[in-house]
Amino acid sequence: MTLSASVVGGSGFTGGELLRLLAGHPDFEIAQATSREYDRKTVGSVHPNLRDLDLRFSSPEDLESVDVLFAATPHGVSMRHVDAFFDAADAVVDLSADFRLSTEEQYDEWYDGHACPEYLEKAEYALPELNRENLPGAELIAAGGCNATATILGLKPLFDAEILDGDERVVVDVKVGSSEGGASAGKASSHAERSGIVRPYAPTSHRHEAEIEEYLGLSVSFTVHAVDMIRGASATCHVFPDGPVTKGDLWGAYRESYEAEPFVRTVSGGGGVYRYPEPKVVAGTNYAEVGFEVDPPNRRLVVFSAIDNMMKGSAGQAVHAANLALGLEETAGLEFGGLHPVGAP
Amino acid sequence: MTLSASVVGGSGFTGGELLRLLAGHPDFEIAQATSREYDRKTVGSVHPNLRDLDLRFSSPEDLESVDVLFAATPHGVSMRHVDAFFDAADAVVDLSADFRLSTEEQYDEWYDGHACPEYLEKAEYALPELNRENLPGAELIAAGGCNATATILGLKPLFDAEILDGDERVVVDVKVGSSEGGASAGKASSHAERSGIVRPYAPTSHRHEAEIEEYLGLSVSFTVHAVDMIRGASATCHVFPDGPVTKGDLWGAYRESYEAEPFVRTVSGGGGVYRYPEPKVVAGTNYAEVGFEVDPPNRRLVVFSAIDNMMKGSAGQAVHAANLALGLEETAGLEFGGLHPVGAP
Amino acid sequence: MTLSASVVGGSGFTGGELLRLLAGHPDFEIAQATSREYDRKTVGSVHPNLRDLDLRFSSPEDLESVDVLFAATPHGVSMRHVDAFFDAADAVVDLSADFRLSTEEQYDEWYDGHACPEYLEKAEYALPELNRENLPGAELIAAGGCNATATILGLKPLFDAEILDGDERVVVDVKVGSSEGGASAGKASSHAERSGIVRPYAPTSHRHEAEIEEYLGLSVSFTVHAVDMIRGASATCHVFPDGPVTKGDLWGAYRESYEAEPFVRTVSGGGGVYRYPEPKVVAGTNYAEVGFEVDPPNRRLVVFSAIDNMMKGSAGQAVHAANLALGLEETAGLEFGGLHPVGAP
Amino acid sequence: MTLSASVVGGSGFTGGELLRLLAGHPDFEIAQATSREYDRKTVGSVHPNLRDLDLRFSSPEDLESVDVLFAATPHGVSMRHVDAFFDAADAVVDLSADFRLSTEEQYDEWYDGHACPEYLEKAEYALPELNRENLPGAELIAAGGCNATATILGLKPLFDAEILDGDERVVVDVKVGSSEGGASAGKASSHAERSGIVRPYAPTSHRHEAEIEEYLGLSVSFTVHAVDMIRGASATCHVFPDGPVTKGDLWGAYRESYEAEPFVRTVSGGGGVYRYPEPKVVAGTNYAEVGFEVDPPNRRLVVFSAIDNMMKGSAGQAVHAANLALGLEETAGLEFGGLHPVGAP
Repeated sequence: MTLSASVVGGSGFTGGELLRLLAGHPDFEIAQATSREYDRKTVGSVHPNLRDLDLRFSSPEDLESVDVLFAATPHGVSMRHVDAFFDAADAVVDLSADFRLSTEEQYDEWYDGHACPEYLEKAEYALPELNRENLPGAELIAAGGCNATATILGLKPLFDAEILDGDERVVVDVKVGSSEGGASAGKASSHAERSGIVRPYAPTSHRHEAEIEEYLGLSVSFTVHAVDMIRGASATCHVFPDGPVTKGDLWGAYRESYEAEPFVRTVSGGGGVYRYPEPKVVAGTNYAEVGFEVDPPNRRLVVFSAIDNMMKGSAGQAVHAANLALGLEETAGLEFGGLHPVGAP
Repeated sequence: MTLSASVVGGSGFTGGELLRLLAGHPDFEIAQATSREYDRKTVGSVHPNLRDLDLRFSSPEDLESVDVLFAATPHGVSMRHVDAFFDAADAVVDLSADFRLSTEEQYDEWYDGHACPEYLEKAEYALPELNRENLPGAELIAAGGCNATATILGLKPLFDAEILDGDERVVVDVKVGSSEGGASAGKASSHAERSGIVRPYAPTSHRHEAEIEEYLGLSVSFTVHAVDMIRGASATCHVFPDGPVTKGDLWGAYRESYEAEPFVRTVSGGGGVYRYPEPKVVAGTNYAEVGFEVDPPNRRLVVFSAIDNMMKGSAGQAVHAANLALGLEETAGLEFGGLHPVGAP
Repeated sequence: MTLSASVVGGSGFTGGELLRLLAGHPDFEIAQATSREYDRKTVGSVHPNLRDLDLRFSSPEDLESVDVLFAATPHGVSMRHVDAFFDAADAVVDLSADFRLSTEEQYDEWYDGHACPEYLEKAEYALPELNRENLPGAELIAAGGCNATATILGLKPLFDAEILDGDERVVVDVKVGSSEGGASAGKASSHAERSGIVRPYAPTSHRHEAEIEEYLGLSVSFTVHAVDMIRGASATCHVFPDGPVTKGDLWGAYRESYEAEPFVRTVSGGGGVYRYPEPKVVAGTNYAEVGFEVDPPNRRLVVFSAIDNMMKGSAGQAVHAANLALGLEETAGLEFGGLHPVGAP
Repeated sequence: MTLSASVVGGSGFTGGELLRLLAGHPDFEIAQATSREYDRKTVGSVHPNLRDLDLRFSSPEDLESVDVLFAATPHGVSMRHVDAFFDAADAVVDLSADFRLSTEEQYDEWYDGHACPEYLEKAEYALPELNRENLPGAELIAAGGCNATATILGLKPLFDAEILDGDERVVVDVKVGSSEGGASAGKASSHAERSGIVRPYAPTSHRHEAEIEEYLGLSVSFTVHAVDMIRGASATCHVFPDGPVTKGDLWGAYRESYEAEPFVRTVSGGGGVYRYPEPKVVAGTNYAEVGFEVDPPNRRLVVFSAIDNMMKGSAGQAVHAANLALGLEETAGLEFGGLHPVGAP
């Protein structure tokens, strides 16, 4: 049985990624892709990798009736249109920050006032590795923030194994690519200004801290740098546990948490060029790579986590969650394994 | 029915690309991947995108019996082992230059002596857009050179439409990525020296001229530049036909040559950011993009052609040809359509 | 004796380059840098390499009296303000296209109507290798276009040595960096869209053809590609002379034309990694590198030329010409020789 | 008075940088550049930015008598040749790790046995911001490690102002370019494998921790990532002081430590694109940029520090120290201020 899907906000980067995934998905057919700016233009004129797709953007004012609606609009848009979304669709998967937090208080602390706080507690966080049991049948799903996703995936096994309980000091130093900024270019993201950078773009107070705090129960010292890649988020977590932890303990913990997960790989040492998680290895894929080292003199653990911010950190996570919500094969449409060699993908 | 396939020279860049394609192909199972250097190591330790593949390299001395053997060895190796390849396999697809030319004379003019010239006339050139009718049942197939492939695909419609007959002056200015140099790094291809370059690496006398001359009947003025990307070959052909040619003539010619071809797209003007062929649009895919403009004051046509040198220009072309040779679905295993946005892929 | 200089349009890329050069020049002091957008802001807040410069942008409405005024404004601005420029300054060096061509007819053919055509014949083309004898005492100087400069420098020795006379067929295939587009970013020049590209951005009819035609007397078949670098223009000229030309002939020609030129180096073969002109070798400098190969089977010469589009192709050329116009040491302020290794500069 | 200088190990990256600086230095003339591999070849054939330099490499066996010898050899070489260096030169500036630490015990803890431990206590650490008073007249000077230099410069004001005393927890997360690996390319540093990466290359136990511990008295939790640039080291220091610290406190501390330093700039917030230290801003220069933010909820300070690893982190630091040791103008030969815009420099 084929399900119908629409993408609201289809001309942006994550909207395009959703369209790419849905077009290659065995169980979905794309009913509609909306774009105010590109209304009536072909999808391929904006996303050149979709030139073979016979589809034109339509106005977000006229939503067709579908099984599932994916919203890839800027923060603050979905909350104002969610009723219209549910008029058109049985299930809504939102990629913005609008429904990621559980309470209005939390939302107000990090964002600027919520238009429909009553939906907050109904929404399910999309990350299957964290919330798998609540996804089947979910009607409103909120895909996580990319930096939060990388961090949560890196640290979660330490909580599962009770190496951390939430009171410890954890520094998270993130490096992200330019696609995180979205398709609307500004001066700071022009090629001439943004190439070759290591730029502290969120020294403190990044909003993704809120998700990490909610879903791990951990307050992190969080800093985000923009680096010269397009796709990718790499989180290095510097962790100071209360007692000694061996590398064997860590292997046990990560194996326990992730051995049944189809999209998480533990990569930690060994030979070859790629010995720890690297975002370019997972670019274009729904995989996350996690790894670690121990630093006994500093009583520190270093945890590395790498994802494609547009895939595992957004559109891929959304489709993965939709697969689980709708009872489809979990990995359907997400099998692409990435390229080698590959540049700044 | 599943066919068995092996990859000789599996640790190089095109060998890895073959393994990636075969692993995702519905009709093949990988029997063997050989590597002298990485014997017994996992394929994933060399090609990190294949970490989920449960396969180790084995020695090229012990070839298993398979339906088809793909050889991704340096130039000059296959010609010395082709008998052993046929002892092991019913069909051989070679990615080196060893069997691309038809006669020993041609080979000797551009290379250094052939070990088994008797195979030259038996071999079929892999490019389906050029040689589709001879591929079914072919036993020895030679995948074309990447720069030659880009050039041939760009110019072929001009011959089909008799806009060119081979006596005209054609300048081909090619820009290629670093994967063309293969996995063995030298000083000139270190990151510090090779980043950010526009480097004339083959000002004249590039060997791919031989293929172009053989298959188009055209002697081209050929120059290749290395630029800062990993995958990709972009050929700009400056063509001086005898008489006037309109853009409409060109649209007609390219449509006629390629409208039935599943892997060639004509992209020529229009709106948006990507108005002509660009290699990053087709990176990771088996697609070629071709396009053109007319320059009446100079009585010139400009033809653009972009491919992924490792895919349409090598491993993808090889699998495409194997599909046709073995009677499989032509596009099987080659459906990946590429990413957007994407960097220097 | 110190001369006073101002930069109109100081917040753009070439404006910043002028300010950098003037700040390090032994004979100039910067009187004023204008910017409408950044009025009263520090120069260092826009150009971070000039943070130590104690200077704020001022309005272009209030021009101070100076010895020389450099105008780095978009095409079409200087022609409307040139009288005001001369009210303020004894000499004007313009970096736009407004005064590059000699006659209104030529200008109208390639651009859109000139506001003060009477200045066209008074203006001197800035390129000293072409026009050295007319620069001393010049009052209005027009810095050449970057792509034209690279092309002219590459081809000029062939005219000097009478290898070409202007009737031959010459294809010029140019590769340029993103700084050529200027500081105003659009969607096509965002980092995510522009990274890793080989993009045909001017397939035909590039306006710099006009300068090449005027100053060399040659109609060129000209195509420009955008590639992944910030600074740099690389011109590959495919030349078809009437008779045979040896590499020795070329060495003689280039030596004759350039051995006395302080900013042109001939690089053509030899060992090492950098055997032909490469833009990254001259990035940040006022040097041009030129080189060549012969292709007897195709009766072709291939000429390579590489410059930094913002330096030799714009601001450096402007200061070089100003040095000559004002009787200063020719190389003053332009001694920086570049970096190695260096990336996509 | 001109001083004579030689560079031992002149064909490597930092050796080339020394030659570049010495060639442009008003008080030095280059007597000799040694290279075993490139003996008798021109310096310009290895370092294309030095093509105008009339100098050939000579053998390190025959050292000429000079005022100062700069050694840019791999770790472990200088310690075996230091007597020969002093036979040839009055002063020696070593860029390797051989003389950076004060005692044999420290050296043995981090490296593998010292050949001449008696020199360790005689050597002066080159970083003027740390050791200015001991440099005049120094005979053996050890240029610091690049990552250590970035870190020390970032954190030193916190010690000067007694915000830190050495017992606090400090995480240092470093991002470096490929020139740090030197001119000898391996597989991991080939363009195809190293482009576009965020690679944890020293998760723990980086040797530069030793220098930081010695010169700041602080044990740091140190992790180094390789990113896609050529030049540059960026250190982000996550600092947890004992009591509250305001941004005003930090401005005071950094001003106090650095207002008299010619090569350190504090950049911390404000408008524009470049609001915190970024390595590309200082690429090619001897400048360091430092900056900071406070994160009260996490009781954290975040300190950013950016240098060019080959300049302030190596050759520039060496020349700066030599200037001070020999009584020259401190900034002589080091005035280059960098480029804008610029890519991955």
